[in-house]
Amino acid sequence: MYNFSFQNPTKLIFGEGQIAKIATSIPKDEKVLVIYGGGSIKKNGVYEQVSAALAEHSWSEFGGIEPNPGFHTCLNALEHIKANGSTFLLAVGGGSVADATKFIAGAACFDGDPLTILTEGARVHQALPLGVVLTLPATGSESNPNGVVTRYETQDKMPFYSRALYPQFAILDPTVTYSLPNKQVANGIVDAFVHTVEQYLTFPVGADLQDRFAEGILRTLIDHGPKALSEPKNYNVRANVMWSATMALNGLIGLGVPQDWSTHFIGHELTALHGMDHAQTLAVILPAMMAEQREQKREKLLQYGREVWNLEHGTEDERIERAIDETRAFFEALGVSTCLEDYGVTETHIPEIIAALKKHNLTALGEHKDITPEVSEAVLRRCL
Amino acid sequence: MYNFSFQNPTKLIFGEGQIAKIATSIPKDEKVLVIYGGGSIKKNGVYEQVSAALAEHSWSEFGGIEPNPGFHTCLNALEHIKANGSTFLLAVGGGSVADATKFIAGAACFDGDPLTILTEGARVHQALPLGVVLTLPATGSESNPNGVVTRYETQDKMPFYSRALYPQFAILDPTVTYSLPNKQVANGIVDAFVHTVEQYLTFPVGADLQDRFAEGILRTLIDHGPKALSEPKNYNVRANVMWSATMALNGLIGLGVPQDWSTHFIGHELTALHGMDHAQTLAVILPAMMAEQREQKREKLLQYGREVWNLEHGTEDERIERAIDETRAFFEALGVSTCLEDYGVTETHIPEIIAALKKHNLTALGEHKDITPEVSEAVLRRCL
Repeated sequence: MYNFSFQNPTKLIFGEGQIAKIATSIPKDEKVLVIYGGGSIKKNGVYEQVSAALAEHSWSEFGGIEPNPGFHTCLNALEHIKANGSTFLLAVGGGSVADATKFIAGAACFDGDPLTILTEGARVHQALPLGVVLTLPATGSESNPNGVVTRYETQDKMPFYSRALYPQFAILDPTVTYSLPNKQVANGIVDAFVHTVEQYLTFPVGADLQDRFAEGILRTLIDHGPKALSEPKNYNVRANVMWSATMALNGLIGLGVPQDWSTHFIGHELTALHGMDHAQTLAVILPAMMAEQREQKREKLLQYGREVWNLEHGTEDERIERAIDETRAFFEALGVSTCLEDYGVTETHIPEIIAALKKHNLTALGEHKDITPEVSEAVLRRCL
Repeated sequence: MYNFSFQNPTKLIFGEGQIAKIATSIPKDEKVLVIYGGGSIKKNGVYEQVSAALAEHSWSEFGGIEPNPGFHTCLNALEHIKANGSTFLLAVGGGSVADATKFIAGAACFDGDPLTILTEGARVHQALPLGVVLTLPATGSESNPNGVVTRYETQDKMPFYSRALYPQFAILDPTVTYSLPNKQVANGIVDAFVHTVEQYLTFPVGADLQDRFAEGILRTLIDHGPKALSEPKNYNVRANVMWSATMALNGLIGLGVPQDWSTHFIGHELTALHGMDHAQTLAVILPAMMAEQREQKREKLLQYGREVWNLEHGTEDERIERAIDETRAFFEALGVSTCLEDYGVTETHIPEIIAALKKHNLTALGEHKDITPEVSEAVLRRCL
């Protein structure tokens, strides 16, 4: 087990009816800016719950955050903050809204061009305080200090990070997810699953408890994922999916272990270049990455097969093959295709994707930093 | 799954060599009081590491905290704080030292008789800031807001709690546990195991992820417990035990689920009346409690057998019996007897134990509050 330190300050407020707790979670003298996406919160009752909870606060709103939040949209929000004197940001939405809100919170206190936070990794030392009302379990953004913002004009999907960007609180009410389209629910489950795998399926370092926790999240998503689609109002199913997605990327399971993230980096290019949903890119890339890296990941693939998919019979190679097949079948059963061509991406697009990886200096990915552009190309060819 | 909220502010600093991080974890202008127990830290190098880390701080020390920290010892520490103007408490030791330090931290800022914190549950709103250097993985006290202090003259072991008592940081270096006597290591493993079971083995509420995490802790302790005794300098073994003990009682696995704690409450009386080690009381009571409550805990006992002990064959009753036997055998294999008479406690002592439970109003214990003094007596009779 590697050395680590861990402190996650986000207060998690979980359960039906908890949105009302906004009222006591934000000091009454703050000027709140409610940030949201395409407006679904105005159809599913969440906006009303948030409004009611903010009855004694001064607040305004900023909608229109894109599914992959755009840099220029964030700049518009900054103008709104200046004009309204907002002092506290409340993200109401999924990971995209949370990510955008974090970027806006940091940029609002940043002395310089906010673009450099993304392009040069300029340090964010201060941020406006923020909270999250989560409406789509997926990214874990509600209790971590990370985000991704896209610059559409250059097709760059750019991550950022600062300890100043942890939300002060996150409200997770599983019932607000009842009305989500199945496609979004499935995407969220795939996202949480792959977040877990990126921190687990590397090489053993004797961190058994972290492994058990990661396997626990994967098993919970496997057990509940299909039911989340077929029984959309099953509270415990939605609650387990929501809690799993938060625990998948709040830092806990990644403590003291090597991490991969190559699937995410290649996936980001597919989203930027071809508009694929984030989770679709992960569902496509992950099984191919497992297959391509089967020797480097051999021990963990066997463990994954045994502990997550109960694979005990057959040769090692057969079990590894089966574990990869089970992973692919799980994504497909959720309705998320694992084949690139189903998204209109063909062999002819591969050079452009590889060029984008090189442009972004993503030429040594993975836990061994051995996923060169050549390996990424081989992975992509397995996805066709 | 029940509603819950969770925020654990303790920074966990984990790994070999991390004690040096005290230097940057406590502001330089604090006047530090180092609190410790019987002096083992002066033999195993921990005191030297702490001294070196505090080279640029003003600090003093207070030793002699008992294995079950005594109320009057805590009062003596308060006198020391007043005399020295200490502003930051650093617990260096196991759960007893951490518990005592929390009580002292709260009592130092308490306006009134500190005894009422224990006897009347008087609220602690403020406390001196504190940190922990953990030398014995067991209680989880290093990252939770709870403690137990004993009043020896009345044989009362009294719990207390306040959110103000979370340590600011906890340093967990597995190598400092290499020199512990096997008896203490075994006690710590039993303690962490039973903490987990008290939050897990109740009745199902659909909190699957919490169950997977609890089972993960139990499996890790089962896998590594015996090795911790036979290979005392195996880093990963000690690291997994240490991390498991912290995760067993930092609040995480108990979120949104019913909790039991009857084994602990009965055990406290055995410690107060007969001087048994805390873990010894748990090892004795837990299997008997499982047997006595087998109908109330039926579903969870079957799940525990399946997920923790891989019991898949036989009738339900056979699997439950086997799960209880495995639990008892695990404790015995660690050298902790599960038989009351091995500790000099016999049938004749039972009335006095039951009287103590009644005196402390512990007459409706367990997740169903159905463990009356009569049930506690039946449990104790199973322990003889």
